[in-house]
Amino acid sequence: MMEELKKQVLEANLELVRQGLVIYTWGNASGIDRERGLVVIKPSGVKYDTMTEDDLVVVDLDGHVVGGHLKPSSDTPSHLALYRAFPQLGGIVHTHSTYATAWAQTGLDLPCLGTTHADYFHGPVPCTESLTPEQVKGEYERETGEAIIRRFNGLNPVYTPGVLVKNHGPFTWGASPSEAAYHATVLEEVAKMAYITLQINPDACGDAALEEKHFFRKHGPGATYGQ
Amino acid sequence: MMEELKKQVLEANLELVRQGLVIYTWGNASGIDRERGLVVIKPSGVKYDTMTEDDLVVVDLDGHVVGGHLKPSSDTPSHLALYRAFPQLGGIVHTHSTYATAWAQTGLDLPCLGTTHADYFHGPVPCTESLTPEQVKGEYERETGEAIIRRFNGLNPVYTPGVLVKNHGPFTWGASPSEAAYHATVLEEVAKMAYITLQINPDACGDAALEEKHFFRKHGPGATYGQ
Amino acid sequence: MMEELKKQVLEANLELVRQGLVIYTWGNASGIDRERGLVVIKPSGVKYDTMTEDDLVVVDLDGHVVGGHLKPSSDTPSHLALYRAFPQLGGIVHTHSTYATAWAQTGLDLPCLGTTHADYFHGPVPCTESLTPEQVKGEYERETGEAIIRRFNGLNPVYTPGVLVKNHGPFTWGASPSEAAYHATVLEEVAKMAYITLQINPDACGDAALEEKHFFRKHGPGATYGQ
Amino acid sequence: MMEELKKQVLEANLELVRQGLVIYTWGNASGIDRERGLVVIKPSGVKYDTMTEDDLVVVDLDGHVVGGHLKPSSDTPSHLALYRAFPQLGGIVHTHSTYATAWAQTGLDLPCLGTTHADYFHGPVPCTESLTPEQVKGEYERETGEAIIRRFNGLNPVYTPGVLVKNHGPFTWGASPSEAAYHATVLEEVAKMAYITLQINPDACGDAALEEKHFFRKHGPGATYGQ
Repeated sequence: MMEELKKQVLEANLELVRQGLVIYTWGNASGIDRERGLVVIKPSGVKYDTMTEDDLVVVDLDGHVVGGHLKPSSDTPSHLALYRAFPQLGGIVHTHSTYATAWAQTGLDLPCLGTTHADYFHGPVPCTESLTPEQVKGEYERETGEAIIRRFNGLNPVYTPGVLVKNHGPFTWGASPSEAAYHATVLEEVAKMAYITLQINPDACGDAALEEKHFFRKHGPGATYGQ
Repeated sequence: MMEELKKQVLEANLELVRQGLVIYTWGNASGIDRERGLVVIKPSGVKYDTMTEDDLVVVDLDGHVVGGHLKPSSDTPSHLALYRAFPQLGGIVHTHSTYATAWAQTGLDLPCLGTTHADYFHGPVPCTESLTPEQVKGEYERETGEAIIRRFNGLNPVYTPGVLVKNHGPFTWGASPSEAAYHATVLEEVAKMAYITLQINPDACGDAALEEKHFFRKHGPGATYGQ
Repeated sequence: MMEELKKQVLEANLELVRQGLVIYTWGNASGIDRERGLVVIKPSGVKYDTMTEDDLVVVDLDGHVVGGHLKPSSDTPSHLALYRAFPQLGGIVHTHSTYATAWAQTGLDLPCLGTTHADYFHGPVPCTESLTPEQVKGEYERETGEAIIRRFNGLNPVYTPGVLVKNHGPFTWGASPSEAAYHATVLEEVAKMAYITLQINPDACGDAALEEKHFFRKHGPGATYGQ
Repeated sequence: MMEELKKQVLEANLELVRQGLVIYTWGNASGIDRERGLVVIKPSGVKYDTMTEDDLVVVDLDGHVVGGHLKPSSDTPSHLALYRAFPQLGGIVHTHSTYATAWAQTGLDLPCLGTTHADYFHGPVPCTESLTPEQVKGEYERETGEAIIRRFNGLNPVYTPGVLVKNHGPFTWGASPSEAAYHATVLEEVAKMAYITLQINPDACGDAALEEKHFFRKHGPGATYGQ
């Protein structure tokens, strides 16, 4: 079972490279085995092109390394906080993809301006508040996860499968590592589209009825999209 | 005959991938056999890299599936409305290509600012009006086609082989599926050029005489371009 | 001799594809044999991926076809006007490359903002005046060449190896077809850089002494660059 | 030993091509053997795709060629000035990469707006002052190095491994040629992100505590990142 999850996590990490969302050692993907309470995650500072399933690290939900010969990603405590808070999550991805990171650097929510966005994210992709200097100096990576969780107060993480961490970059998630990677690609694309849209027309805005239609055409019990 | 059309429709779908206009399962291309009144279209939610001619779906102009083992694209009713209203159309393409979709999200017509645009589109590429919430909640995909048809009141769809659907994305068409895909590529490129042009010089505008010259150098009875 | 020139012209056309400056049948490259007074140019509306040396067309400086089985590029009269006016030219390229075309659509000269530009173009890349409607309706392609020639009154075409044709796109040239293609690539890159620069800082401007230094480090009798 | 350094310098030059930071003969990478006081650098005006280790040039810190059959890069005196002033440097790279060059053309420092930047550069990437016309007309390339050195008065070149030379382009450096090339890639990416960020939100700004955390998570005695 962990072998299957490792395969999925490796594949999700490599998908980030294929989609142009990460370079060098940037970014990371993880997946969780909910029954065993174990998370498989990318090792810290290892390049994608030589990474194998054996290089992946297994940690429990408290962050103890229970498998693998390398140190886990420095962002591991952020992933674990999200897995603990949102039991629906099966995989998490963090990237520094260009347009989503630029939006994260603006400190603004990414507005929903069309159906490309609404097919995957219900409403804006929210941007977190800044951490306090004390939080940054303390358990910074765990605090990043907590800032995301606070921002999702009142939001459904299944309907909004991603977030912009202010001055940092995007996290996305899904039912599996591969869905988390898929959402990272979509987020980058809609972040680029929203940027161009607002450059052309700063007054552009979304269409609430259309967004509802598109989101629920693909999600929830009434979904009709696909086979 | 349907085999030949299926080959053309598959090829048009794959051209969208090659030209970078679609990712994953986004977008769709179709083609029509006017004699038989049958349309071949991409199946819903199927990835391009494994799609074969056998996966394509055959529907009649009322939307009844008459061939294929998969569900047709969810956008099928939009395609059918256009085929019914515009008898000159042989193929239709829908994408979420970045710049054309961004223009669609602005709600503005795409102005003709130069010969690259005028070689293929006579005048601006129009943007539709928003649907009413009732239209969205009703037969949404058919209503999308009707909104395009209303917007083309007074326009010649052969001279303006594409449209921006507000808050959604572009549809393009042509005498064949391959020409529809070609126009999707051109639309994306001229949408990008117009964006950059207006960022540099918000007062930039087209040249009516030059646009007429270029369009009719390539189209209509007096065309001289090509072999 | 014409075989060697045909090889160079074919290669220059293919370089435009490799550098991402043209798609489909857009753009064209030509070269001249000054002794014979003959020009080799791309045929009209032929795709690059199947084009061979045999498809190229040979015309004299008055535009009479003297070799080849296809019609020459519709832009041939523009090329010929430039070859007649500027005896230093050995090759000419026309593209619709994205950023250079966007600048051409603005109607503005492309300012020299740094050494990347100054290494190849001495001063701004000029933009032509609009043609009159009568000129457009008349011998349009020849008039385009004449508009370029008028714009170069007082300019040295060897020191400014390119131009923006208003609402149309760039032409570049050089001592050979390959140098003309090289300048098309450089022009696209500096057009992109200038766009970004002025978006960040609308007050950005060049540095006259630095531009002189860089241009004449690579050009003229005192050049020191290269082997 | 020089063979090993030549291999590293060749590889760093080729990495610039792979990362899309240079085209044709633009840019150059060098490396230094501190024990012998010898620098290996790209030859002037030679294309990357045919360049071999034998084409690289060996110069001493005063610029005398002591090995190789070609002329060194015209930017060699800039590299040598930096190697003399900053003994921590093992490799230097100069490119005309699009976004970093655009920032250099603005004359503005590149602000730190997020963790992607802060992971590699401590504080803004500074932009030099203009040279005087006399400096440009004199030993221009050495003066370029001196302008960088003046700009780093009070800055630690190990913590700020790059600079924007006004109206010219970026130089980056590191403990090795490969690290210098790596920093060139990062600089291009953060230059692009900062551009987009400020287009969306001109009031965007960094987060001092977060920047400190990220920089020192990867650098200095308390670093925890990587294996």
